[in-house]
Amino acid sequence: VNEKLHVPGFLAGGVSCGVKKNGAKDLALISCPSGATAAGVFTTNQVKAPPVLLARERARRAVARAIVANSGCANAFTGEKGMADARSVTQRVAEVLGVAEREVLPASTGVIGGPLAVADIGRAIPGLVAGLSPGGWQDAAEAIMTTDTHPKLASRWGRLPEGHIRIVGIAKGAGMIEPHMATLLVFLATNARVEAPLLREMLREACNASFNRITIDGCMSTNDSAIVLASGTACRGAIRKGSPSAARFSAMLLEVCRELAERVVADGEGATKTVKIRVGGGRSEKEACVAAYAVANSMLVKTAIGAADPNWGRIVQALGASRAKLNPERLLLRIGEASIVRRGCYAGEAEEEKARKVMRRPAYEIRIDLGMGRGESEVLTCDLTEEYVRINASYRS
Amino acid sequence: VNEKLHVPGFLAGGVSCGVKKNGAKDLALISCPSGATAAGVFTTNQVKAPPVLLARERARRAVARAIVANSGCANAFTGEKGMADARSVTQRVAEVLGVAEREVLPASTGVIGGPLAVADIGRAIPGLVAGLSPGGWQDAAEAIMTTDTHPKLASRWGRLPEGHIRIVGIAKGAGMIEPHMATLLVFLATNARVEAPLLREMLREACNASFNRITIDGCMSTNDSAIVLASGTACRGAIRKGSPSAARFSAMLLEVCRELAERVVADGEGATKTVKIRVGGGRSEKEACVAAYAVANSMLVKTAIGAADPNWGRIVQALGASRAKLNPERLLLRIGEASIVRRGCYAGEAEEEKARKVMRRPAYEIRIDLGMGRGESEVLTCDLTEEYVRINASYRS
Repeated sequence: VNEKLHVPGFLAGGVSCGVKKNGAKDLALISCPSGATAAGVFTTNQVKAPPVLLARERARRAVARAIVANSGCANAFTGEKGMADARSVTQRVAEVLGVAEREVLPASTGVIGGPLAVADIGRAIPGLVAGLSPGGWQDAAEAIMTTDTHPKLASRWGRLPEGHIRIVGIAKGAGMIEPHMATLLVFLATNARVEAPLLREMLREACNASFNRITIDGCMSTNDSAIVLASGTACRGAIRKGSPSAARFSAMLLEVCRELAERVVADGEGATKTVKIRVGGGRSEKEACVAAYAVANSMLVKTAIGAADPNWGRIVQALGASRAKLNPERLLLRIGEASIVRRGCYAGEAEEEKARKVMRRPAYEIRIDLGMGRGESEVLTCDLTEEYVRINASYRS
Repeated sequence: VNEKLHVPGFLAGGVSCGVKKNGAKDLALISCPSGATAAGVFTTNQVKAPPVLLARERARRAVARAIVANSGCANAFTGEKGMADARSVTQRVAEVLGVAEREVLPASTGVIGGPLAVADIGRAIPGLVAGLSPGGWQDAAEAIMTTDTHPKLASRWGRLPEGHIRIVGIAKGAGMIEPHMATLLVFLATNARVEAPLLREMLREACNASFNRITIDGCMSTNDSAIVLASGTACRGAIRKGSPSAARFSAMLLEVCRELAERVVADGEGATKTVKIRVGGGRSEKEACVAAYAVANSMLVKTAIGAADPNWGRIVQALGASRAKLNPERLLLRIGEASIVRRGCYAGEAEEEKARKVMRRPAYEIRIDLGMGRGESEVLTCDLTEEYVRINASYRS
């Protein structure tokens, strides 16, 4: 058992309940019997799944004691029945755990539009609860996977004046990934004591700098949710806003989120490469971000990344077509240590050959300067491969 | 010889000059010895290729007598040298044709960033000119192809009071296709007499309703150009703004553009299906258009189209994530004759099965009502297949 994947006061687990037809784990539970402060950020898709609406409402309450999440079915665009189904799952979890229904936050991920197999889930809950354990995070991480090829876990710990603080997080990603002011599915647990407003602020900042800076296919899900539970159990006191401990805790939270975000991109559907698109020289941070996403989401750039082909003309094309203003005569473009374009001029085949070598690495950076100002931003992306198409052509069959 | 592919007063041709390494035709010439009124619409990409800048400037002049276009190299992001190269090609064409250099409009398509093989092109021009013929449109259409699998030609004719009018058009497409206030490469020729301002207006309208409503991969090229030449040779008089003839000529022009646009999508890189996304019920035409593009460019929707999988949840996701406002409770969604979502409710598996059958057809419609207003728009898209990735992973190698 990996000791780093424990957070005092939390139990976790995952089982197969039959939502996924292949018998893989598909139901996860995270429990905090003593109660935790909760904070969440959720999808900004106009079509929000019933479990998202319910979790968002309940995350605002004083105390949360559990998160129940299924994979294989998103319970999205399912209307009133979908909402009743989400409530019914949390009610059953509450009964078996002996807590209030409003203290249980639901989440679902998988195919959009189909009904949730509430009966199957209900039957599996007693066994799931009975098997909960401090070391059950691996099982929980597996049970929220859809087309992910492996579970994603990350943790940090630190000795603060307020106590020996741990943060554990799990995430799932793979497809329909371009979080926007929200994320995919991410659950974080900590034994720190943090009041809800501060916790919300910290989570939002951490998500903005991690999950909100990645893209696999430019598709924002209906079910994106990131939830943090803070039990406060290990604490000699609450972490106060503006204190050195708040800064350290924020940094730890961000590190966990960044590590999970990077793993999500690296495990993008069919992905073989992780590439950070760093844009500087924008008229504003927002324009730099727009330019970074334009490159990060370009099907032609992503295909060239997959082929390790330094086809930099496609990057220029994507930048030029974006809403971000650029100065073609001052444009800079680097792929790893290769300077392909300097002050608007192509640097020649030797640099391109250098870039080709960089592009064979599993991870590297593409740096762009728009030549307009001081705005900076970055986005993490992956390549587009035939495997992405294969996975998504057969996802439901 | 197809008589419909003649326009009195125009000669066309295409040869191989060596820009493409495989020996395929790569240099096209369209000539109008008597001189023509020209109008053009060009890419709105901030990075405009030198030939685009030159053609745009020259299309504004009184008389145009030739269009010279190469494939295999876009001569884009090539700076002052690229501009000198484009000028030098048109100068050589002008010399051989015996016309003024400013009467020759250039165009290039292919890989962005590399230098134009001006010497190879120059050597091929005398032979190209010598081989020009009224029936040479097929060769010209072949010579502008990049990853297109077949040449694209369309024509219309009509008896108007002003004369027996013909319009012939050729186009290339295949990848980096999401024209925006401009198009891919399209050359149109007519023997009608139309003054430049009216011709420009008609071309803009025709492009907006045809090339500006298609997408293959959401990538707007640096070289998009549509140019029409009107020789006026067959005319008993000019077509006047507001006349019934202007309406008929506009309709003919639009038909030629639509037919070419449809062929471009049907021959999209790796494409096996052509799908029209029709959106109604938007708060405005613009929002309906935004929603249509959101669906038309979604990698997940395009992959589902390729797999003939009625995974309608992905369409709902794409709509919800777009900037177009929708009312989830009033949403309608039809795939061909299958009503999948009615007033926000999933219609059940029988309809989905019906949709699956529709999706096996090579062409069909997806109709969406956003439930917000009366704004309507439509976009033509194709599927995303493994072949698209294969083509673009090996495009330069």
